[in-house]
Amino acid sequence: MAFTPVPFDAKVVASRISECPMPIGIASIREVNKVVNLIEQDLGVRYIRMEFGIPGLSLSPIALDGEKEALVEHQLGSVYPSFEGAPELKQATADFCHAFLNLKIDPKCCIPTNGAMQGGFVSIGVAGNITAGKDTILFLMPGFPVNQMQVRLWGLKMDTLDLYDHRGEALLQALENRFAKGDVGGLLWSSPNNPTWVCLKEEELQGIGELCTKYDVMAIEDYAYLGMDFRQNYGVPYKPPYAPTVAHYTDNYVILISGSKMFSYAGQRIGVMVISPAYFERTSAHLKQRFIVDNVGYSFIHPGVYATTAGVSQGAQHGLAALLRASVAGEYDFLKVTREYADRAAAMKKAFLDNGFQLVYDNDLGEPLADGFYFTLSYPNMTGPELVEKLLYYGVSAITLKTAGSVREEGIRACVSLTPVDRVDELAYRMQQFHADHPVESQ
Amino acid sequence: MAFTPVPFDAKVVASRISECPMPIGIASIREVNKVVNLIEQDLGVRYIRMEFGIPGLSLSPIALDGEKEALVEHQLGSVYPSFEGAPELKQATADFCHAFLNLKIDPKCCIPTNGAMQGGFVSIGVAGNITAGKDTILFLMPGFPVNQMQVRLWGLKMDTLDLYDHRGEALLQALENRFAKGDVGGLLWSSPNNPTWVCLKEEELQGIGELCTKYDVMAIEDYAYLGMDFRQNYGVPYKPPYAPTVAHYTDNYVILISGSKMFSYAGQRIGVMVISPAYFERTSAHLKQRFIVDNVGYSFIHPGVYATTAGVSQGAQHGLAALLRASVAGEYDFLKVTREYADRAAAMKKAFLDNGFQLVYDNDLGEPLADGFYFTLSYPNMTGPELVEKLLYYGVSAITLKTAGSVREEGIRACVSLTPVDRVDELAYRMQQFHADHPVESQ
Repeated sequence: MAFTPVPFDAKVVASRISECPMPIGIASIREVNKVVNLIEQDLGVRYIRMEFGIPGLSLSPIALDGEKEALVEHQLGSVYPSFEGAPELKQATADFCHAFLNLKIDPKCCIPTNGAMQGGFVSIGVAGNITAGKDTILFLMPGFPVNQMQVRLWGLKMDTLDLYDHRGEALLQALENRFAKGDVGGLLWSSPNNPTWVCLKEEELQGIGELCTKYDVMAIEDYAYLGMDFRQNYGVPYKPPYAPTVAHYTDNYVILISGSKMFSYAGQRIGVMVISPAYFERTSAHLKQRFIVDNVGYSFIHPGVYATTAGVSQGAQHGLAALLRASVAGEYDFLKVTREYADRAAAMKKAFLDNGFQLVYDNDLGEPLADGFYFTLSYPNMTGPELVEKLLYYGVSAITLKTAGSVREEGIRACVSLTPVDRVDELAYRMQQFHADHPVESQ
Repeated sequence: MAFTPVPFDAKVVASRISECPMPIGIASIREVNKVVNLIEQDLGVRYIRMEFGIPGLSLSPIALDGEKEALVEHQLGSVYPSFEGAPELKQATADFCHAFLNLKIDPKCCIPTNGAMQGGFVSIGVAGNITAGKDTILFLMPGFPVNQMQVRLWGLKMDTLDLYDHRGEALLQALENRFAKGDVGGLLWSSPNNPTWVCLKEEELQGIGELCTKYDVMAIEDYAYLGMDFRQNYGVPYKPPYAPTVAHYTDNYVILISGSKMFSYAGQRIGVMVISPAYFERTSAHLKQRFIVDNVGYSFIHPGVYATTAGVSQGAQHGLAALLRASVAGEYDFLKVTREYADRAAAMKKAFLDNGFQLVYDNDLGEPLADGFYFTLSYPNMTGPELVEKLLYYGVSAITLKTAGSVREEGIRACVSLTPVDRVDELAYRMQQFHADHPVESQ
């Protein structure tokens, strides 16, 4: 098969790069996307698009049927959703947590949101307002940059701790040192991690949970990629192994569940906050200042979700409920579907690693990382921004790890979702050329 | 026709009222609703339900077809919505503003939201953060209480001005006095007004607009009931009379459009912010502190809508776009459909006014109020809380005006949406009994 030769026409690529209002190496996803779209049009070529972190699979008809039933049969389009969320979705979430996390929880503690984005926004707001003086949100980095914007919107403070330098005991020690200052109200992380696909180990989650209890910090577990550590099969309902969660180790937790990646449901903005029952019942006089109520659980709902969006779309709530029910019943294996991303990651990693690239974040306490939605790359003697720019000449688009707040200057993030396995040969060809044109001197 | 006799069994009603954790006269909609549901079950009776402000009509199939096309044909359920909103909805909103408000606006200034609730939340946040020291949001009262919660969530300040005491010149004078203190960043009102159905006159809107320009205040026009002043027919596209708006009188405006009442689309949480093009292009260094960007227009989008919900459901965006297009094309007359509320209001008002009740807010600068979604009531020698409680014995449920922040201690709010005209005879019977049992002494 004859591939489009690389590098592409350097004049055209350079010209489009120069139109970007900032150096392309530090540009946002959106800016990189714009430049790449223009080059594709100019040259009639197709990039390997790794800059976006968006689903590359289809939404199941189960969701569409659930939405249709709610809107057409039950005529819910004209009916305000209840503050707490649709009972069907609350129950389905509780059952899902039982089946896949081995976590028994009252449906009342499962609060639907307009995507996990709203879950993060509300959780951060509550976390930073429960206790006077504990108005800092700590992030395990790198991470999703918008969560940090949310902290600024609330007028709260933030701090960070990088997973590159901190895993296992070192992570827990650093966390304890930071918590001990007494100003941290919430700790937010994602595992599997965007952008590195690091997965925290059970003992790390246990340590985090215990520290959150000891220092009274809200553990905000962003579980956008729930169960997608494909080294294990977490996909059999009510059977071990169960997907790990901090919820087993503290009463101070909120799990953010998102329909976007697990179910490729990004277009309808649907997620659920799963709040610790003990935490749900707490009261806090300080919380009242901004959240009007002193009941922690209620503050997530009203004013939390209510005063920001007056609840969540009926259609999407019932669509997600249908997907969760089908998963719990063993009729829809969401991890079998999303395992496609692991296959893509394995093939793509090989194409890079065979040609001089290295993984930046490359192990979980000694164990090789799982293959999944993202991985991280570097190339010898190149910074992240240099690598992003040079790869554009070879038909590959990505963003730097710096954009996600990593301490690693040399890294870029690769998202596999838009690259079917049948395009990986082309990727390998391009990276062979790249490698040939950028020889690595032996050190 | 034989109606269920009133008053209902006093022991049962009193017992359920006593279970409410607060005096029923000052309880929230939700609490009143709970008490009434229980009495209905206990006694097998049906109340005239006036406490809810929810649509009582059906969602048009036009919306359902629009949603279906987006999700089934275009498979958008798995595709993240764009930050700025779906181009189809942005264009349809711009056309709608042209056709019904005589307002020409760039589609880029039309930003979809998860209901007008999110529009209000984001607008208040931006309004209070554009200029250092201008962190107070002023409300024309009475109003929708949740907007005031939003101010507290943002950590901003609020102040109020009641429309009962302030109309016409008095309103403008009071506004100017308040604006002159220099701390007001935003002014929010609804017209037609929830809960009084007061409609601001063109000269009032003109004065408000000019003052917002003079004192650099963001005019936040909550237009949830756009065009529903049924004394006029604003429903013929591209033909006068056009629904009045402050947008003709200032460059500092945001109009909050809501699908919930105009199109009975409350279940899917869909609205649009229409932002003044001149305002959209402004920059503010102070804004950056919390909103990251210094461009005012962009701040509504990113982080505004983006960091709270990552955009708006694809289905609902395309459903509303379809409704707006049909309205602009003259194929769907949304004001003919919602005129049903005016018919209900006229009949219900008569049942009350014939039996000793009075309107509290009763005129627009001398002109009788329009019939619409809400009206306000009082009964001689009773406070609002007393009236709410006593009416429960006669099969009528409502909330006090105090709940909506009115200065009028004697008032209650009546929402007509759940009372079809064919139940008004029963209402009249009940109010005759009420009147007979509560004779008004001549003063």
